[in-house]
Amino acid sequence: MTRDDALALDAADPLAGLRAAFALPDGVTYLDGNSLGPPPVAVHEAMAEVTRRQWGEGLVRSWNTADWIGAPLRVGDKIARLIGAEPGEVTVADSTTVNLFKLAAEALSLRPGRTTILSEAGNFPTDLYAIQGLAALLGGRARLKTVAPDDLLAAIDEDTAAVILTQVHYKTSRRWDMAAVTAAAHAKGALMLWDLCHSVGAIAVDLNAAQADLAVGCSYKYLNGGPGAPAFLFVAKRHQAAVTSPLTGWMGHADPFAFEDGYRPAADIRGQITGTPPILGLAALETGVDLQLRAEPALVEAKGLALAALFIAEVEARAADPDLKLTGPREAAQRGLHVSFAHPQGYALAQAMMARGVVGDFRAPDIARFGFSPLFLSYAEVWNAAHALADILADRGWDRPEFQTRAAVT
Amino acid sequence: MTRDDALALDAADPLAGLRAAFALPDGVTYLDGNSLGPPPVAVHEAMAEVTRRQWGEGLVRSWNTADWIGAPLRVGDKIARLIGAEPGEVTVADSTTVNLFKLAAEALSLRPGRTTILSEAGNFPTDLYAIQGLAALLGGRARLKTVAPDDLLAAIDEDTAAVILTQVHYKTSRRWDMAAVTAAAHAKGALMLWDLCHSVGAIAVDLNAAQADLAVGCSYKYLNGGPGAPAFLFVAKRHQAAVTSPLTGWMGHADPFAFEDGYRPAADIRGQITGTPPILGLAALETGVDLQLRAEPALVEAKGLALAALFIAEVEARAADPDLKLTGPREAAQRGLHVSFAHPQGYALAQAMMARGVVGDFRAPDIARFGFSPLFLSYAEVWNAAHALADILADRGWDRPEFQTRAAVT
Repeated sequence: MTRDDALALDAADPLAGLRAAFALPDGVTYLDGNSLGPPPVAVHEAMAEVTRRQWGEGLVRSWNTADWIGAPLRVGDKIARLIGAEPGEVTVADSTTVNLFKLAAEALSLRPGRTTILSEAGNFPTDLYAIQGLAALLGGRARLKTVAPDDLLAAIDEDTAAVILTQVHYKTSRRWDMAAVTAAAHAKGALMLWDLCHSVGAIAVDLNAAQADLAVGCSYKYLNGGPGAPAFLFVAKRHQAAVTSPLTGWMGHADPFAFEDGYRPAADIRGQITGTPPILGLAALETGVDLQLRAEPALVEAKGLALAALFIAEVEARAADPDLKLTGPREAAQRGLHVSFAHPQGYALAQAMMARGVVGDFRAPDIARFGFSPLFLSYAEVWNAAHALADILADRGWDRPEFQTRAAVT
Repeated sequence: MTRDDALALDAADPLAGLRAAFALPDGVTYLDGNSLGPPPVAVHEAMAEVTRRQWGEGLVRSWNTADWIGAPLRVGDKIARLIGAEPGEVTVADSTTVNLFKLAAEALSLRPGRTTILSEAGNFPTDLYAIQGLAALLGGRARLKTVAPDDLLAAIDEDTAAVILTQVHYKTSRRWDMAAVTAAAHAKGALMLWDLCHSVGAIAVDLNAAQADLAVGCSYKYLNGGPGAPAFLFVAKRHQAAVTSPLTGWMGHADPFAFEDGYRPAADIRGQITGTPPILGLAALETGVDLQLRAEPALVEAKGLALAALFIAEVEARAADPDLKLTGPREAAQRGLHVSFAHPQGYALAQAMMARGVVGDFRAPDIARFGFSPLFLSYAEVWNAAHALADILADRGWDRPEFQTRAAVT
């Protein structure tokens, strides 16, 4: 592909108009929206509205007058439209980790007698840690079992309460077939809990079409919700009356402002909320979600996969370095929107790209990772970035001492 | 007291200069800082810094360059100075509810064989709910026992793993003697977990002088951290190596960016963190904490108690309504900084005050509650507010239909 070919793709891109809705610094090609999405332009005005007008002028009254109290479900309903869920099936709450803990405990309660939570070895660590913590708390009543991805479907058995998988793997970008895996779990009587951290806002997700039971996700990646933005969770309507969150807080009570001594869970998705909603984080997130809703998920996925394919093809066509290895699948239908190249100098590679204005990241032990957010990236800048990486590989541009110094967060 | 007496107190108030550091709307006397503190003036600049410069220009790199990754412990160390804790004993994390769940579970693990978490009936509901949820999850291995406040000390026994109390009661304002209750718990081998929601930034707290074991608190009341600001928790140094949070997330791992499959807890306070830190909320909170650190806690407490005493005295001296009853103790040493009057028309009273520009709040079933944040209130405006309440009571000013309509959040 020539640069002119890439420019032609940009000219025909139905999402190209969304680029102007993001505030990105000059001279930066941002291939790390899969780690932290950039701010929508509108977020600055939104934050001023919430801090100056709602908080500053409305003060405590804004819980009612600005509907702060309704924010978790209001933003949840918007996220629902991006993941094939119905209104009332999603709420914003807590962190991905905390939500995993809640939903895993609820899955166990829905499948009494079963003790196994099944996941894949190498899943994003917090998913495994959340279940390990739950299992430790429950003693012998639950355990986490991890198997290699290829062995996963066969490992689902009559003791499996739930299968927990990240739909798109944070390192390899490999994508699980949501409908097929959910059906396999159901065939053994197990529930299916999807982690959508690398899916939401990136690929077209349809939880209800897949008959998924439970899901969690973070909102600071492709949803551009801001650093440490609050997470979300999904509980299918058919399960809501039967589950009670183990993290029972006043905001999940059927009548929070009755101030009763005994917990009575809200029978709907509100029962999954624990503490007071984080309004500043919700306000920023809502801006990101509103922007995402302007794009058709199928178009978002198609563009992101095309950008990733362009990057892979251009790098591999030009990079003669035999140490560079694409991890995970090459086929678009089997992957998400980030591309991971393993290389012995993976960390330094990412640093050398950074020095050229291309921001990607690194995942231990050896992966240089690049994400292709469809809402703000152009084909031409991805073409440029691929050529930058190819050039660095060709002339060992990573081989400088300053590219070896590791930062606290990698 | 005359209004001139109040003005004289303001003229001599060593904290009077802090009023200018808050952005409060004209015409409002804000007696609800105990529910949601108002924004510090500096928060607007701080939010612009974090959203425009750190997030917008630094993008993902700000986890290192703006030390986002260090924010939970950095702000925690600042809060530690307000509550008699050492550096490394406090972190910002999650919500008060979630932190209560964690620390209650840890208390049980520190006292194997003991099954009771003891609290008072009528404690703030989320404190009770968090323990009820934990007990339900643990089956017979734990239970919440609540007793009337007067029976609490006698109810601590050899099965008590921990006593959980809110130091200042959200309704009555009654204050527990932190050192005495902690000693009573220790005398029976139980741990002491303090909820500081209505203490921090209000009264002088010294956790280590009292030999407290564990504590939690919220930061959107007297710390002025913003709506739904992240909460904090305290684990005394002597316990840190022996406890593991049940909510095991990647940010509590000894080496989060090694991305290991197995959880290895950080041996220090970091082990209490679960998910990715909420940076927008932390940035606002840090502004509030920085402002709080400009005031000596003993002076803050003394002024707040004086304001509360002034309000009680002026209302009671003028209000002839026999239905008006001060709930909780009258003596300064036994109370916190809010004043609760029970009245059959408590809700309408609060609304009638609101109509006169005095913002307080209501707590079911019949309490009109007024908080006296020492950093931004003057004696003169509290004097005015007391007279407004007395006037409303004298002429049944609450008796208007529009004051009866309840909002979602009361």
